Amino acid sequence: MNNFEFRCPTKVIFGADTISKLKDEIPQDKKILITYGGGSIRKNGVLKQVKEALEGFNYNEFGGIEPNPKYETLLKAIEMVKNEGYDFLLAVGGGSVLDGTKFIAAASKYEGEPWDLITKGVEVKEALELADVITLPATGSEMNCGAVISRLETKEKFPFISEKVYPKFSIIDPKTTYSLPEKQTVNGIVDTFVHVMEQYATYDVNTPLQDQWALGIIKTLLEEGPKVLREPQNYEARANIFWCATCGLNYWISLGCVQDWATHMIGHELTAIYGLDHGETLAIILPSLWRVMKKDKMDKLAKMAIQVYGANEFLPKSLLADITIKKTEKFFHNIGRKTKLKEYGIDPKEAAQEIKRRFSERNTVLGERQNITPDVAYEIVLNA
Amino acid sequence: MNNFEFRCPTKVIFGADTISKLKDEIPQDKKILITYGGGSIRKNGVLKQVKEALEGFNYNEFGGIEPNPKYETLLKAIEMVKNEGYDFLLAVGGGSVLDGTKFIAAASKYEGEPWDLITKGVEVKEALELADVITLPATGSEMNCGAVISRLETKEKFPFISEKVYPKFSIIDPKTTYSLPEKQTVNGIVDTFVHVMEQYATYDVNTPLQDQWALGIIKTLLEEGPKVLREPQNYEARANIFWCATCGLNYWISLGCVQDWATHMIGHELTAIYGLDHGETLAIILPSLWRVMKKDKMDKLAKMAIQVYGANEFLPKSLLADITIKKTEKFFHNIGRKTKLKEYGIDPKEAAQEIKRRFSERNTVLGERQNITPDVAYEIVLNA
Repeated sequence: MNNFEFRCPTKVIFGADTISKLKDEIPQDKKILITYGGGSIRKNGVLKQVKEALEGFNYNEFGGIEPNPKYETLLKAIEMVKNEGYDFLLAVGGGSVLDGTKFIAAASKYEGEPWDLITKGVEVKEALELADVITLPATGSEMNCGAVISRLETKEKFPFISEKVYPKFSIIDPKTTYSLPEKQTVNGIVDTFVHVMEQYATYDVNTPLQDQWALGIIKTLLEEGPKVLREPQNYEARANIFWCATCGLNYWISLGCVQDWATHMIGHELTAIYGLDHGETLAIILPSLWRVMKKDKMDKLAKMAIQVYGANEFLPKSLLADITIKKTEKFFHNIGRKTKLKEYGIDPKEAAQEIKRRFSERNTVLGERQNITPDVAYEIVLNA
Repeated sequence: MNNFEFRCPTKVIFGADTISKLKDEIPQDKKILITYGGGSIRKNGVLKQVKEALEGFNYNEFGGIEPNPKYETLLKAIEMVKNEGYDFLLAVGGGSVLDGTKFIAAASKYEGEPWDLITKGVEVKEALELADVITLPATGSEMNCGAVISRLETKEKFPFISEKVYPKFSIIDPKTTYSLPEKQTVNGIVDTFVHVMEQYATYDVNTPLQDQWALGIIKTLLEEGPKVLREPQNYEARANIFWCATCGLNYWISLGCVQDWATHMIGHELTAIYGLDHGETLAIILPSLWRVMKKDKMDKLAKMAIQVYGANEFLPKSLLADITIKKTEKFFHNIGRKTKLKEYGIDPKEAAQEIKRRFSERNTVLGERQNITPDVAYEIVLNA
């Protein structure tokens, strides 16, 4: 096991009908800015519940944060925060709203060009307090300190990480997910699956417990995923899927482990260039990346075949790894997710060339062994 | 899944040679009291490492906190803290030292009779800052806000819980466990095993992920436990066992689950009356409690037989539960732990009568269904 440090100060409030607890968690004297997305929280009654809980509080609203939150939109919120002096941000919505709000929290306390916080590695010294009512089981943003921000102007999408932007609390009410469009439920399952794989399917540094936990999330997704698709109002299944999503990226499964994140980084480019959903890009890239990098990932993929997919432990490792790749693709198909670029009408060669060009320009190398060069990325996208 | 709230503010610093990081974690202006136990940290060099890290800091020492920390001893430390004005406590040692230090932290800020914090449920409003260098994988105290305190005078042993006594940070260096006497290594494995079972082996409220995680700890203990006993200086095995112990009681495996803790409460009485080690009492009580309460715990014990002990899933549940009970006893024996009162020269009838008397006097009922009355406890101890 590698050495590690870990601290997550976020308070999690999980369960049915918990939005009303907002009033006990935010100090009365705060000037609150509620941030949200396209308005689904109006339709499903979540915004109403939030406002009822904040009766008597001093708050205002900023809506319109998009999926893959756009820098250009967030700049407007930052200006509003600075001009009107909010001192508490409450994100209500999915991971994109929360990610955007994390960036607003940091950039509102920064005097320079906000984009430098993302691309120049400027350290965040201070951030506004933020919290969330999270309504989409997917990104795990509710218990981590990361975000992903896109820039329309340059078609770029980059991660942003700072310990200063851990939510103070996250309210997770699985009932808020009853009304999710099926596509988003599927994206969330795929996103969680791939988060876990970015932390698990690397090389082994002797972390048996963390491996069990990672594969425990996968087994739960395989069982509960089809259940929420069949019965969108099955509370227990919704709760289990949400807790899988949160634990998929709160770092608990990967403490002391080696991480990858190449599938995400390549996927981000597909979103930036073609506008595919994040979950769509992951289901395309993961199987292809595993095929190209199979030798490096053999041990973990073989272990997964035995523990998750019930394969015979006496089969050769290479065959076991193939079983994991095929069964994973099959799972994605079963829950209604495509796994090939062509199925979206995208020419793999064109995509591969553009991504290679971008990675070459930025000197990007990826993967747990830093051996996914632009040429290897080309091969992965070409075969996707 | 039940609703839950969770927040653990402790920073974990895990790995080889991490004690030197103390200097970065404690503010320079603190007046520190280092608390420890019987002096093993002098012999194994841990105290030396701590003092080297705190070169230039203002600190003093309080030694002599016993296993099953005694109220009478802790009162002396509380007096010392109040008289000499320490504002940071650093526990160096095992769970007992840390538990005692948690109590010192709370009682030093309380003006009434300290024992009331334990038995009268007086709320802790404030506590001194505390942190630890934990050297024994067992109690999980390093990432939770609980403690267990004993009173010599009245032969009592009670839990003490307050969110105010979460450690600010915990340094876990698995190398500090190389020199543990075998008996303590075994106690730690048993303690971790039973912690997990107190949170897992109850009734099912649909928590598949938490169940996987709980059983993941058990599987890791079964694999890595014998390894540390064979090779006490195997770093990887020591690291895995320590991380199992920490995760066995940092609440991650039981969020939204139903908990028991009857084995612990009965075991505490055996320690209080006969002076048995905590780990010794647990290995005695757990199998007997499972036999007496088998009907209530059948589903989870059966699931464990399949997932941990490789039993055939088509066997009847009752038989599967028996397999778990027998295989667990066998595991305790294999790592050198007795599972019967008689093996310690204790008369089960006498013990059962005394424990029944105590529980009746205090109106104690235990178990996840609150159906372990003093009479049921009598039966459990009698058969132990």
